[in-house]
Amino acid sequence: MKKIAVILSGCGVFDGTEIHEATMSMYAIVKNGAEYQVFAPDIMQHHVINHLTGEEMNESRNVLIESARIARGNIQPIEKFSAGDYDGLLFPGGFGAAKNLSDWAFKGKDSSVIPEVERIIKEMVNAGKPVGALCISPVLIARVLQDVHLTIGQDADTIEALEAIGATHKKTGHGEVVIDEKFNILTTPCYMLDANIAQIGEGAENIVKAMLDIID
Amino acid sequence: MKKIAVILSGCGVFDGTEIHEATMSMYAIVKNGAEYQVFAPDIMQHHVINHLTGEEMNESRNVLIESARIARGNIQPIEKFSAGDYDGLLFPGGFGAAKNLSDWAFKGKDSSVIPEVERIIKEMVNAGKPVGALCISPVLIARVLQDVHLTIGQDADTIEALEAIGATHKKTGHGEVVIDEKFNILTTPCYMLDANIAQIGEGAENIVKAMLDIID
Repeated sequence: MKKIAVILSGCGVFDGTEIHEATMSMYAIVKNGAEYQVFAPDIMQHHVINHLTGEEMNESRNVLIESARIARGNIQPIEKFSAGDYDGLLFPGGFGAAKNLSDWAFKGKDSSVIPEVERIIKEMVNAGKPVGALCISPVLIARVLQDVHLTIGQDADTIEALEAIGATHKKTGHGEVVIDEKFNILTTPCYMLDANIAQIGEGAENIVKAMLDIID
Repeated sequence: MKKIAVILSGCGVFDGTEIHEATMSMYAIVKNGAEYQVFAPDIMQHHVINHLTGEEMNESRNVLIESARIARGNIQPIEKFSAGDYDGLLFPGGFGAAKNLSDWAFKGKDSSVIPEVERIIKEMVNAGKPVGALCISPVLIARVLQDVHLTIGQDADTIEALEAIGATHKKTGHGEVVIDEKFNILTTPCYMLDANIAQIGEGAENIVKAMLDIID
């Protein structure tokens, strides 16, 4: 059975992983006959956002512990990931990708990715295995690989920053997947567009199916 | 367009709403041509569980604020719910139903449901509108209506407690929906069985479709 590693960055769109994108990705993996293992870094979140008001809370939370909510406790620290054990790697979106897995939310094109995320992307690419990213997570891949074809949807500022890094951006609509055939990178916009949850399901289904096709 | 109210109890299986069940329910509602509005009570959680270790954390969190993570901020306090505004009402599962919306986890058949949950179930039933519940959430409906036909899957202790209240239980497998035609109550076991996420998607799809059929 094909095995996909899913990398989370917390639990909630504004300070962690976007919950619908993560859930619909895991659903698409199992529905299409593969299996998943969830990973997250054992680090503190950049901050905690009250998702009702949008304001910062006077709390601190751990990315691995909060990600475990989406994984129902079945999660591994990212250090345990080895490219030899998996056929594909998938990053759902959410601000956690830009705040916890990198500092893209604050530094844009001048941001950096945490070392473990850089390691696992490079390991997969060097092994010729596919890496997928939803929503804002393609910025992680651009920061690591630079000269990569990808999509984050339509957002002009993000596209400008990606092109400044050396990436080639393709504008996309709901459910579309861009594939970089040199690096086997797959990307789809999801909630980077004004989307409903059925459109997220479509995007997750399409990117997972395209990844499983590459693995064949 | 048919409107379904979805009631959450936090964000995470062990101290709140089960995230996959909530997400797959919202997905099924939109995919089948209806729309949803999310509600949760503005109360403190019974406790906070570290979902990595299963141990209690020395923290306190608010049910409405944490539920807002699943709702992407688009959520209302449960006091705002009126049966006149909705065609159906749906409770995803997770221990939050048994710890925050009621004290079933601690008192079983002698438990009680928080007043707002009792109010909204009774309002819907009195209006002849369907109420659905996944996983452990059927216990809420049994506590309010007593003489109701339902399922929580196969768990012997929970079945015994439900029958002591006066409910009639039917054992079910993955994706099966039990319908009480007197009260228009729909139930399906989801993670009360040893299930994978595709089976949760099937259960959510089946209960939502059955609810929309009743609304027709």
